[in-house]
Amino acid sequence: MKLHLERLPRTLELKRDEDGLFLTYIDQRLLPGELRICSTRNWSEVYDAIKGLAIRGAPAIGLAGAAALALWVDNASNMTAFYEASQCIAAARPTAVNLRWAVERAFQAVSDAEDPLPSEGITPPEASSVLFDLVQQMQIEDEDTNKAIGANGAELLHEGSCVLTHCNAGSLACSYYGTALGVIYAAAEQGKIERVYADETRPVGQGARLTVWELAQVGIPTTLICDNMAASLMASGCVDAIVVGADRIARNGDTANKIGTYGVAVMAKEHGIPFYVAAPMSTVDGLLSNGRGITIEQRAASEVLPTPIDGVDVWNPAFDVTPARLITKIITEKGAISPDELETLLP
Amino acid sequence: MKLHLERLPRTLELKRDEDGLFLTYIDQRLLPGELRICSTRNWSEVYDAIKGLAIRGAPAIGLAGAAALALWVDNASNMTAFYEASQCIAAARPTAVNLRWAVERAFQAVSDAEDPLPSEGITPPEASSVLFDLVQQMQIEDEDTNKAIGANGAELLHEGSCVLTHCNAGSLACSYYGTALGVIYAAAEQGKIERVYADETRPVGQGARLTVWELAQVGIPTTLICDNMAASLMASGCVDAIVVGADRIARNGDTANKIGTYGVAVMAKEHGIPFYVAAPMSTVDGLLSNGRGITIEQRAASEVLPTPIDGVDVWNPAFDVTPARLITKIITEKGAISPDELETLLP
Repeated sequence: MKLHLERLPRTLELKRDEDGLFLTYIDQRLLPGELRICSTRNWSEVYDAIKGLAIRGAPAIGLAGAAALALWVDNASNMTAFYEASQCIAAARPTAVNLRWAVERAFQAVSDAEDPLPSEGITPPEASSVLFDLVQQMQIEDEDTNKAIGANGAELLHEGSCVLTHCNAGSLACSYYGTALGVIYAAAEQGKIERVYADETRPVGQGARLTVWELAQVGIPTTLICDNMAASLMASGCVDAIVVGADRIARNGDTANKIGTYGVAVMAKEHGIPFYVAAPMSTVDGLLSNGRGITIEQRAASEVLPTPIDGVDVWNPAFDVTPARLITKIITEKGAISPDELETLLP
Repeated sequence: MKLHLERLPRTLELKRDEDGLFLTYIDQRLLPGELRICSTRNWSEVYDAIKGLAIRGAPAIGLAGAAALALWVDNASNMTAFYEASQCIAAARPTAVNLRWAVERAFQAVSDAEDPLPSEGITPPEASSVLFDLVQQMQIEDEDTNKAIGANGAELLHEGSCVLTHCNAGSLACSYYGTALGVIYAAAEQGKIERVYADETRPVGQGARLTVWELAQVGIPTTLICDNMAASLMASGCVDAIVVGADRIARNGDTANKIGTYGVAVMAKEHGIPFYVAAPMSTVDGLLSNGRGITIEQRAASEVLPTPIDGVDVWNPAFDVTPARLITKIITEKGAISPDELETLLP
């Protein structure tokens, strides 16, 4: 199979011209019907894009958050509200730890660049320059990390593998290449992938809209299923491995990911199929000993039930937590490890 | 809670006026937006309604199949193609055994009414009269059966129960009252139901469109979830019992039902939640020793992916098979029994 990884567009890019910084990003709400690249100099547009799922995926919203802070600085007349701006952006979505991690890293980079002696502090143009460089570096790191995850994960798959994935932990969820789909791309480059099954991933349809589009771009044979078909697919013997991404991983390996992931893991256990989580180490929340402390974002009822019905409520958590005991390996840029070995990789 | 079972409309009714027989039925594709009662004298319109899911639900398509055969006879000039018509109608959908069961019962009723002596055979008007009476009788039996299932199932639920259901095995799936929802209605009449959780049931949305509408009519507090949220809901301790319907049950208790049912049963086992199948004895296929022989209907890709994407296939089975070992009780009109006791109720 000939792969066309070059057809994967950059999810977002922070650029600079004579008028200052601007961010280009794919509005992922329009895929697969339209590949629209938006461009903005307005940090609050990026905030809205994160909150409204135009930009989504744990690594991508981290990068977008850092870029939003860069845009804020680039348009600021002074740095008085810099901390508040960073806190606001970091809170756009609560579950993925990468957003807070990236924004705090950006905040820290500016703080570190300040003259340590009593001074008038860093100016917005200086901070803008620091953040522009940082976001470029984070983009490169993201891609390098994903390729390392891919290489580590590909070793776990055998030739002729049919892999099931849930949601989109692909190039569109990152700067480029992807985490769970990164594993699939790396394995496909080694000729190991026969077919990918994609859960449609209700209610937002990241599988039906994004994963199948991305895999079709690259040229990997793909079959779309409804989320509720996964158990039956596994029972029919069509699934050799499951690879998903992560939004937050606790120190013990408990993993928050897109709603439905936990159910897939339960079914994988029932059918004896290995269940892999692919994620960068930045997804590990070193402050959390286990998954019980993970905040689960609740989203609007209208995502599930567009026209309300009197007397009918909707429960719409965006994520769930898969306990470490159901996870065969966590695939990071540092290696593929058992959940109980995760502690050894942490600082 | 005040229940309004009188608000549930009849799913279908075979009637007679001076021009002959006609069937009224709810076009379930239009719910919950519109409650449209269609009327037809044309058997092939009923065939199309069954095939196109305007009429769906195992008991309802059985009744509709028998009614379609009555309409065929009522418009026939002779009985030459009667057998072929019955075979055609019985094959409209392959998985639910009730359709074939009901159409064969109708065929047999006409055969039994024929003069046993060599004769010119039964005339279309005579056969029409036999089938009209039979369908009325089957409607009454259906309602009586459902109420018996409801009473038997209600005994299994304790006060304050929160029940999860998948698809629609309600009044809309039958003539009236329902099988799985019949259990919930009977339990609610005893004050035992706190809330019903309804899986939306992709791709056709029988839960999101039909079950929540039906429960809202009756006045039972209802929460809609996406199919992939069920595992997380169970883990949160919100589900006391699961009740679903069935399209075909093998002698050993293996049960075909709407796609996704098997996954729910796996999750129920993981969380120690009782999993009940509610169905009339006519759903039991005495010819099948286990679920491996059940034909699973594959439906169109467009139900899952309305706009095709090059390189992306769709797998869209309409049903799956839940092995008997995952079923706590099968609730029939003859009692609630363990799957391994099913044989004792069979002829």
